[in-house]
Amino acid sequence: MKDIQSVIDAVSPLSSAAMEAARKRQAKLAKPPGSLGRLEELSIQLAGITGNAHNQVKVRHLLIFAADNGVVAEGIASTPPSVTAQQSVNLTLGKTGAAVLAAHFGCKLTVYDVGVNADLSGTAVINRKLAFGTGNIARGPAMPREMALKALQIGAEAALEAIAGGAEVLGIGEMGIGNTTTSAAVTAALTGLPAEKAVGRGAGLTDEAFRKKQQVVRMALQINAPDPADPADVLAKVGGLDLAAMAGAFLGAAAGRRPAVIDGFISAAAALCAVRLCPAAKGYLVPSHASVEIGSKALMEALGLSPLFDLQMRLGEGSGCPLAFEVLDAACAVLDGMATFDEAGIDDHYLEPIRRIDAFAAGGDDNG
Amino acid sequence: MKDIQSVIDAVSPLSSAAMEAARKRQAKLAKPPGSLGRLEELSIQLAGITGNAHNQVKVRHLLIFAADNGVVAEGIASTPPSVTAQQSVNLTLGKTGAAVLAAHFGCKLTVYDVGVNADLSGTAVINRKLAFGTGNIARGPAMPREMALKALQIGAEAALEAIAGGAEVLGIGEMGIGNTTTSAAVTAALTGLPAEKAVGRGAGLTDEAFRKKQQVVRMALQINAPDPADPADVLAKVGGLDLAAMAGAFLGAAAGRRPAVIDGFISAAAALCAVRLCPAAKGYLVPSHASVEIGSKALMEALGLSPLFDLQMRLGEGSGCPLAFEVLDAACAVLDGMATFDEAGIDDHYLEPIRRIDAFAAGGDDNG
Repeated sequence: MKDIQSVIDAVSPLSSAAMEAARKRQAKLAKPPGSLGRLEELSIQLAGITGNAHNQVKVRHLLIFAADNGVVAEGIASTPPSVTAQQSVNLTLGKTGAAVLAAHFGCKLTVYDVGVNADLSGTAVINRKLAFGTGNIARGPAMPREMALKALQIGAEAALEAIAGGAEVLGIGEMGIGNTTTSAAVTAALTGLPAEKAVGRGAGLTDEAFRKKQQVVRMALQINAPDPADPADVLAKVGGLDLAAMAGAFLGAAAGRRPAVIDGFISAAAALCAVRLCPAAKGYLVPSHASVEIGSKALMEALGLSPLFDLQMRLGEGSGCPLAFEVLDAACAVLDGMATFDEAGIDDHYLEPIRRIDAFAAGGDDNG
Repeated sequence: MKDIQSVIDAVSPLSSAAMEAARKRQAKLAKPPGSLGRLEELSIQLAGITGNAHNQVKVRHLLIFAADNGVVAEGIASTPPSVTAQQSVNLTLGKTGAAVLAAHFGCKLTVYDVGVNADLSGTAVINRKLAFGTGNIARGPAMPREMALKALQIGAEAALEAIAGGAEVLGIGEMGIGNTTTSAAVTAALTGLPAEKAVGRGAGLTDEAFRKKQQVVRMALQINAPDPADPADVLAKVGGLDLAAMAGAFLGAAAGRRPAVIDGFISAAAALCAVRLCPAAKGYLVPSHASVEIGSKALMEALGLSPLFDLQMRLGEGSGCPLAFEVLDAACAVLDGMATFDEAGIDDHYLEPIRRIDAFAAGGDDNG
């Protein structure tokens, strides 16, 4: 098993030469400079990531890490914990929201069990189980540090395997009841945000359950006192196996020089862990949608990113990634397919207006 | 030629029965209610538009209306007016930003010349020319009322033809140097916004040119005094042939019961004209991206819409529509492809967690 530090060491800065080549090409395209906004930026970022000015993102792979979170014992989730196992399998059967979107947009989808509290053998879920769920962070740590490091490695390996298999872009998603609570705790720990600013309503909580969730995050931070300067400590004490594996997958994507798309709140929390472990991994991140979870905004700010679209989604599972792949694909298409000013004949006046007559005189004449 | 009033009369309210059927299906899908946000809303809107609970938007048609605008004589555009003709042709040759995106996302693209100041015969641009450009709105009306009504009809016919040809969704774009100025004037006239709140920098103006543009819009409103209660008057006096034809296309889409996607600022100004002419047309509109033009926000508010994505684009040409088609397509896919709670086995506990052991005891064991 590859040590996570060797993955981190393998992450290089973006290629400035390739970015410069892409930037020069953008400047020659027949459009007002900057008028394709983030499509231009993404094409330049992709160049920096792969080291080639021209790219494509036809081979897409959505990696989903599934695990149960012991904090559900506090009653903070509106969904029974058994849904983690059920939906992990349903994802592989193409039945869930993210699975439908992945199939629709031609993305391969792989579900890794890194800590589901059920035996999923005999299903298409890949077994990388480190535990049958984590400890309850409101009462103690989620897991020992060694286990968090192992989950990081598993995630990185999954990403590197997908890249070895031809993936041109990765999406990082999750399935784990209770993980909006662990993500809120990780967000608060890493950003210094108070619990009430990091805790959202998850998948539809009552007022009472919402207050309870804030209280649970406060307890988790107080009891575990995670070290904000040590992301592995944060993941081990108030995170989860899903989060740790996802953070590893972001690192693996960066080491493998492929863009990794962030889904929603949980995926962003994992991405911030990855960037805190390895600042150079930041250049490989691509945001997707604006999550409605309150902590998401703080995470995006901490990551220096802003979402590409806002569809008011809060399903998780990586459901925001497939549309982001389309945006990236559009960015590649524009860079490759648009004519330059020369090709467009805009400096050649090849179609010089032949006459300028009074509009009123021409009125009513279909053929001008 | 179909009279525009007969097109308006043909617009029906959305089908509440089909919307109810789609809403019921959404409620049964295996996800927290509302967690797919706008994808859910769009699937319900589409049902209302077509009258069928299940829809698809595989056949996409981008309609681009090209015309010159006499107001360029005031020096308000950063691009020479000859670019209208050149890019109209380049659009049909697949060379421009919108053309590349349309081809990439499998959209048919048709360019209609409704008022380009050049003879485009011998090109693939369809000739529906009403004039070789409009009058300068800073000095008088853009065109006579009759011409504006004719442009509305031409746009509506183009939409109805595309629908007769099988289009399941339309995108409404434009090519017309000077049309951010006419759109600002139309926006100010219809919303009551002062000129300085409706005028943006278009395709990259200097400070001086920007002030000049605001002044030109003020002059246009003062000299022409368009009647805000009469959208045809507004289009004729301070609009353009591109804007009028686009407004007509939005009406045609509604009459033909197909969704019409708004591109950026200019397209939104045309959409507001359509809705003021026919309030029932509103239900058929689908926004795409947030335009960086300042007047765009006011138009979206007046239309009661909010953009689906924000890519900081300001190219025009309908370039925002192809990605919106993908979002609509995703909405259809989710409604059709996701499992219901029954199908997902979430009430059946078919995968009941078999054991819950202490996470720490399981630590370090790859197979749990």
